[in-house]
Amino acid sequence: MKDLILRVNTLTEALPYIKEFYGKTLVIKYGGAAQTLESLKHLFAKDIVLLRYVGMRPVVVHGGGPEITRIMEKMGKTSEFIGGKRVTDDETMDIVEMVLSGKINKEIVALINHHGGQAVGLSGTDGTMIEAKKLHEDMGLVGEVQAINPQVIRTLDEAGFIPVIAPVGIGEDSKKYNINADTSAAAIAVALKADKFIFLTDTPGILRDPEDADSLISTIHIDEIDGLIKDGVVGGGMIPKLIAAREAVIAGVSKVHIIDGRLPHALLLELFTDAGIGTEVVA
Amino acid sequence: MKDLILRVNTLTEALPYIKEFYGKTLVIKYGGAAQTLESLKHLFAKDIVLLRYVGMRPVVVHGGGPEITRIMEKMGKTSEFIGGKRVTDDETMDIVEMVLSGKINKEIVALINHHGGQAVGLSGTDGTMIEAKKLHEDMGLVGEVQAINPQVIRTLDEAGFIPVIAPVGIGEDSKKYNINADTSAAAIAVALKADKFIFLTDTPGILRDPEDADSLISTIHIDEIDGLIKDGVVGGGMIPKLIAAREAVIAGVSKVHIIDGRLPHALLLELFTDAGIGTEVVA
Amino acid sequence: MKDLILRVNTLTEALPYIKEFYGKTLVIKYGGAAQTLESLKHLFAKDIVLLRYVGMRPVVVHGGGPEITRIMEKMGKTSEFIGGKRVTDDETMDIVEMVLSGKINKEIVALINHHGGQAVGLSGTDGTMIEAKKLHEDMGLVGEVQAINPQVIRTLDEAGFIPVIAPVGIGEDSKKYNINADTSAAAIAVALKADKFIFLTDTPGILRDPEDADSLISTIHIDEIDGLIKDGVVGGGMIPKLIAAREAVIAGVSKVHIIDGRLPHALLLELFTDAGIGTEVVA
Amino acid sequence: MKDLILRVNTLTEALPYIKEFYGKTLVIKYGGAAQTLESLKHLFAKDIVLLRYVGMRPVVVHGGGPEITRIMEKMGKTSEFIGGKRVTDDETMDIVEMVLSGKINKEIVALINHHGGQAVGLSGTDGTMIEAKKLHEDMGLVGEVQAINPQVIRTLDEAGFIPVIAPVGIGEDSKKYNINADTSAAAIAVALKADKFIFLTDTPGILRDPEDADSLISTIHIDEIDGLIKDGVVGGGMIPKLIAAREAVIAGVSKVHIIDGRLPHALLLELFTDAGIGTEVVA
Amino acid sequence: MKDLILRVNTLTEALPYIKEFYGKTLVIKYGGAAQTLESLKHLFAKDIVLLRYVGMRPVVVHGGGPEITRIMEKMGKTSEFIGGKRVTDDETMDIVEMVLSGKINKEIVALINHHGGQAVGLSGTDGTMIEAKKLHEDMGLVGEVQAINPQVIRTLDEAGFIPVIAPVGIGEDSKKYNINADTSAAAIAVALKADKFIFLTDTPGILRDPEDADSLISTIHIDEIDGLIKDGVVGGGMIPKLIAAREAVIAGVSKVHIIDGRLPHALLLELFTDAGIGTEVVA
Amino acid sequence: MKDLILRVNTLTEALPYIKEFYGKTLVIKYGGAAQTLESLKHLFAKDIVLLRYVGMRPVVVHGGGPEITRIMEKMGKTSEFIGGKRVTDDETMDIVEMVLSGKINKEIVALINHHGGQAVGLSGTDGTMIEAKKLHEDMGLVGEVQAINPQVIRTLDEAGFIPVIAPVGIGEDSKKYNINADTSAAAIAVALKADKFIFLTDTPGILRDPEDADSLISTIHIDEIDGLIKDGVVGGGMIPKLIAAREAVIAGVSKVHIIDGRLPHALLLELFTDAGIGTEVVA
Repeated sequence: MKDLILRVNTLTEALPYIKEFYGKTLVIKYGGAAQTLESLKHLFAKDIVLLRYVGMRPVVVHGGGPEITRIMEKMGKTSEFIGGKRVTDDETMDIVEMVLSGKINKEIVALINHHGGQAVGLSGTDGTMIEAKKLHEDMGLVGEVQAINPQVIRTLDEAGFIPVIAPVGIGEDSKKYNINADTSAAAIAVALKADKFIFLTDTPGILRDPEDADSLISTIHIDEIDGLIKDGVVGGGMIPKLIAAREAVIAGVSKVHIIDGRLPHALLLELFTDAGIGTEVVA
Repeated sequence: MKDLILRVNTLTEALPYIKEFYGKTLVIKYGGAAQTLESLKHLFAKDIVLLRYVGMRPVVVHGGGPEITRIMEKMGKTSEFIGGKRVTDDETMDIVEMVLSGKINKEIVALINHHGGQAVGLSGTDGTMIEAKKLHEDMGLVGEVQAINPQVIRTLDEAGFIPVIAPVGIGEDSKKYNINADTSAAAIAVALKADKFIFLTDTPGILRDPEDADSLISTIHIDEIDGLIKDGVVGGGMIPKLIAAREAVIAGVSKVHIIDGRLPHALLLELFTDAGIGTEVVA
Repeated sequence: MKDLILRVNTLTEALPYIKEFYGKTLVIKYGGAAQTLESLKHLFAKDIVLLRYVGMRPVVVHGGGPEITRIMEKMGKTSEFIGGKRVTDDETMDIVEMVLSGKINKEIVALINHHGGQAVGLSGTDGTMIEAKKLHEDMGLVGEVQAINPQVIRTLDEAGFIPVIAPVGIGEDSKKYNINADTSAAAIAVALKADKFIFLTDTPGILRDPEDADSLISTIHIDEIDGLIKDGVVGGGMIPKLIAAREAVIAGVSKVHIIDGRLPHALLLELFTDAGIGTEVVA
Repeated sequence: MKDLILRVNTLTEALPYIKEFYGKTLVIKYGGAAQTLESLKHLFAKDIVLLRYVGMRPVVVHGGGPEITRIMEKMGKTSEFIGGKRVTDDETMDIVEMVLSGKINKEIVALINHHGGQAVGLSGTDGTMIEAKKLHEDMGLVGEVQAINPQVIRTLDEAGFIPVIAPVGIGEDSKKYNINADTSAAAIAVALKADKFIFLTDTPGILRDPEDADSLISTIHIDEIDGLIKDGVVGGGMIPKLIAAREAVIAGVSKVHIIDGRLPHALLLELFTDAGIGTEVVA
Repeated sequence: MKDLILRVNTLTEALPYIKEFYGKTLVIKYGGAAQTLESLKHLFAKDIVLLRYVGMRPVVVHGGGPEITRIMEKMGKTSEFIGGKRVTDDETMDIVEMVLSGKINKEIVALINHHGGQAVGLSGTDGTMIEAKKLHEDMGLVGEVQAINPQVIRTLDEAGFIPVIAPVGIGEDSKKYNINADTSAAAIAVALKADKFIFLTDTPGILRDPEDADSLISTIHIDEIDGLIKDGVVGGGMIPKLIAAREAVIAGVSKVHIIDGRLPHALLLELFTDAGIGTEVVA
Repeated sequence: MKDLILRVNTLTEALPYIKEFYGKTLVIKYGGAAQTLESLKHLFAKDIVLLRYVGMRPVVVHGGGPEITRIMEKMGKTSEFIGGKRVTDDETMDIVEMVLSGKINKEIVALINHHGGQAVGLSGTDGTMIEAKKLHEDMGLVGEVQAINPQVIRTLDEAGFIPVIAPVGIGEDSKKYNINADTSAAAIAVALKADKFIFLTDTPGILRDPEDADSLISTIHIDEIDGLIKDGVVGGGMIPKLIAAREAVIAGVSKVHIIDGRLPHALLLELFTDAGIGTEVVA
């Protein structure tokens, strides 16, 4: 009985957080370990379902890098990378969309539904949601986001469904484009006027000293970002995330969070505790 | 951190219960210690707000016996009781309504709103919600429920408010009637086609041996009730509760629960644990 | 037959007035003889029902001074007044709310419903409708209006109910406050963007010479009010009414009327005749 | 002042009638003196506007016999009648529709709008509202009602307009048909599930002795109608009215009234007095 | 089969035009041969029905000159014209409304319904749609448009009906006014914020040389109109059309078209081909 | 010009068909040449867009056999077939979903959107739309349809989107199942209460003599189907189609059509001509 009482006490402690985010839109960039470790995948799906049931409106945008490489290898294709981006010929693009929209996306959808949600998977092609254009002649079908048409997301969200989005862009020429998942998620957060935009990553957040987990920077103001990049404090894949975060904040998203998806229930830890976890980016 | 993780684990353990009762109407007969002890009052209000935020539709019906007696004494009136019912002359009825609708009701409303809800207090007079008629010539304005007009409850519930109801009846002759709170709550549960109807009492439930808290009967089928009364297992104030429970179950309420309001978060313990607490009455 | 023809002629003469106020919100401050004389009470209730049936949207705000004093005396409390306001300790506040919300309010509701309306009683606590704060340290729980949350009024009005409001305020500290009924009614009229705000009083209106009923001032412009107070033309309880009227007019209520509630059907006389009765306050 | 008080008293006496018919549909067959005398026309229009403002839903169906004859004569056509029905060739039908829909109908519409209503004129052609078929080979375009499509009436009524209907039928062959106004009105009353269907006529109702105005039959049960016709108590134009009334009552219209349109405000006299006027036909 | 394939090819060629005008409001001034030749009348009705079914929202405004003259002659009235306008005494106005609203209007309605539409005929009197005032003392009831109340048009359009409008105006004095059909149609197009306003005429459009059909001016900018009139390129009935067109364009209608109603399916030719037909007036 | 007139004539000839199917739901099983030949793919997409614009509600269900085999080969998997069904291990199922939902589905969506539609791609996983269970122990993840949850289809359809569905089933165990596309489409047609269900195939329909295209059977009654199978008139892949057709007809779909998808605009030929093409199955 003591146990049960502890349990319901915890529930009521969640009340202020539930009130705070009631009816709010959260865009979650899903990736890293949270997407690949079996146990974390289930916890993530449960968290999403819980968020929806307590009145929030989560929208999931996922990536899929390693799986794409794996399938390409299986099909005898090798990937060339320029500046961290995969040069994308027509056949590669076919594989990218197939893996993102047909495998990873549906797997996330199935997991959320397994835990009691009503998820629906979409790619940027559906309802011409993510309009894209070619980034550079030499990169093939690598694209950048031109515009977001959020109607299909809104339609599903308002009918009680949880949208799960594969970041594939569609050009005016009806060609598919391979676009960056972080940037796409940021553009979607902006188009939906999201209240929060959360990156699930494989780091504890932005560390002043990458070797020292205790050097976590809790809050970054957007005008500090250029300095952090110049000083080399952030690098690699974190740079596009921070730039996407800045764009989202400038365009009206109140807060962006970069959190550690390797923690069980990372989303709930961020949303249901005062301290939060990871690094938040604010105006 | 460990603490926080325990906390979010608890939240996700609540998910199956949240799903089960999502969108369901719960009528709660509120009384006893839960209504009189300062600390329990606050926990009750918090629980009601939480239930609403996680998608349930609570409707509170309260009593008020001791406070009525206290105020009557202050005003120099003494109460006469026949068969457990207060003989109610015009002046007594005035005091009953004043205390129920003006003091107790508004106190509950204020507490729920203090904890973040949007409660609205009603008496059976409002919207002619509880139609009543005289019970017996010798009892004065003691009445019994004739019909429930649930429109005002539904209107408020659908607009996001939490209805809190004082059980005062209104006659065709526009006279107020002093009616039993348990019976009123049952009639309201039936009129709202509630999924659950819960009595908060000052007992652990129905005990086979009143001296032995371990003799709790977890489940009672409605056709066992007459026997339990005849055998003297239940008596006193529990008899009208069991009869009201039976009527509610017959009229379509799936389950009625008699639980121990002296436990902190009794409502959550009932709704968010497998075992539940107290005694349930089923068809 | 002649009689009947006269009667239907009268009905059609009402048509221009019905058209003028169709769909308009009227806030009525109800008090004085109209609230205490048995026969006038019934006529008032009938008038309110009629107004609703011919398409207007009446909202009633009532006071309750004398009854509060009567009950306090019964309970052995004596009231101290400073500057016309009752010093309000906790116990007094309990009695104020009990009498206003539990006795007077429900009596008005019952009368309106008796005559065929669908009234619902509310206090400022319900839906946190009237937010208040302490007026002065020495006055105890005497408060002033901070903000009006009109959602619960609108919800009920749109669903066909007639809101009847007891002017009790609720503080951020969840304490009840004893607030002025005239000022509360004015604030509610403003929050509802009412088309008319009518005071039912025990005077024929504003008299230039209080001894001479023929000295009625039909129309007062809001910039004349300061002069009238300074010159002593108005005094006593009429001063807060005029100040409340001015605030309402400035905030957008087209017209405020101070009329003689001692006249049978005073409301209809004001609304259904060209001349109107009493004094109107305009911009 | 006394005068004004009498006036508002009258208004409140109307309340029970207003409540009784609130939201109810009334189909009014408009004809006779009420449609031809200048002063009565205005009173009728005012009555209709009043009925709408106090919450009833009037639908007007009119005839037009004498005016059709007048215009035909002007255009050098003579009418042949068989069994009281005008033999209708193509040219006659053109004139019938022109006079009914273009002259009489629009005149009624303009009058109602002049008095503050929002009337819209329709013929049976509009929205294929009155489907008709040929009555008899020898009668030309004389038709009988086949079906009523009430959508256009409902659309206008729900948007706040008052439908005014010219009884012209439209065949499957897209030919216009000259149909009986009484029968059309009855069919429309049935299709709208009207609560009342009222004939405005040039008689005081059904008289047992046509010479004696005091011999008015207040109530006729539908199974008395055949007897009344057989006994010659009713004859001429009253026969189709009574038959239409019977059909309407059988099909679910609660009451049909045959009243004296020559009385000023005949409609109000019927609806706003206990006795009513004229003859009612009931099941 | 070849035939059928050609046919469906044609259908798909219409797709871009269907998309372009989907959900758009088109006001069509209907007159001339298209309204008088039996075969063209049917084709026009079919076209209107088709436009509605493929998602456009056509509103038809018609004239009626020759038929009015014909009926007047039949009734022994002769018309006097001043400056191309018929001097209109009361009797003439009666005939004008009768012919426009009762004959021509209902004939168009019946034809559209015959071909599967759901047309409803209206005159400017209905819902006080076209408010007018006297144009000149010497002209009798010749009027000009004062204001358009488009509610009745919108109500019917939104419920799926096709409004067909006879241009009769109604004055504040409740008198009917004989108003110009072209100007009325333009005012209606403006009030409805129509996307297109099309005149069906008996000319191929505006010809630079009236003798030479090849001298058609495809596009006129509104600032060219004065010059064209001054140079005598346009004259007669085309002048008010061009002026009405200019007013419509200035008030926000994107394009006005003057097309040859003598061509079968003139409306479809204009709307479903790239070239269009006739003359367009643009800003 | 002649050409243009022919063109608009054709449009108006389509009117009766447009009316017939206005607002009706059509489920189209898309496959065969229509799905693989570049030119036919575009014509199909255009047809779907046209159907939607003229008021029908098309829902597309596609298959994908050959492409699945092609990708499997690329990935070094060989397929084993038992009774025409592909034995499906976990890895095969991954490829099936990837190809169906990620490649073929999105390609169809992109094409429809390219031609002006608003398609959204779904698999049976989305919104748990197609519930499936294992067909036979030896077949691995080959499944059969258990239930259809059509909410996500309806939500998108009502918001103006065109649903395009990949027939992947989802089990209670959250496993994906490889299910027959024809049967899935039939179950979806039934769940949507479709008016028509159309198979696009690579045959002219059901031929009495497979060698003789002139032996087409235009109409089959569902009780003839068993005979046709027994007599060997139909065989191979046509058998499950006919059985699915029969089930659909029994469950309330009015008509099922088996048509030749190799014909350009086959859908339009079926829907917009009297004769129709191929074989229809009726009750």
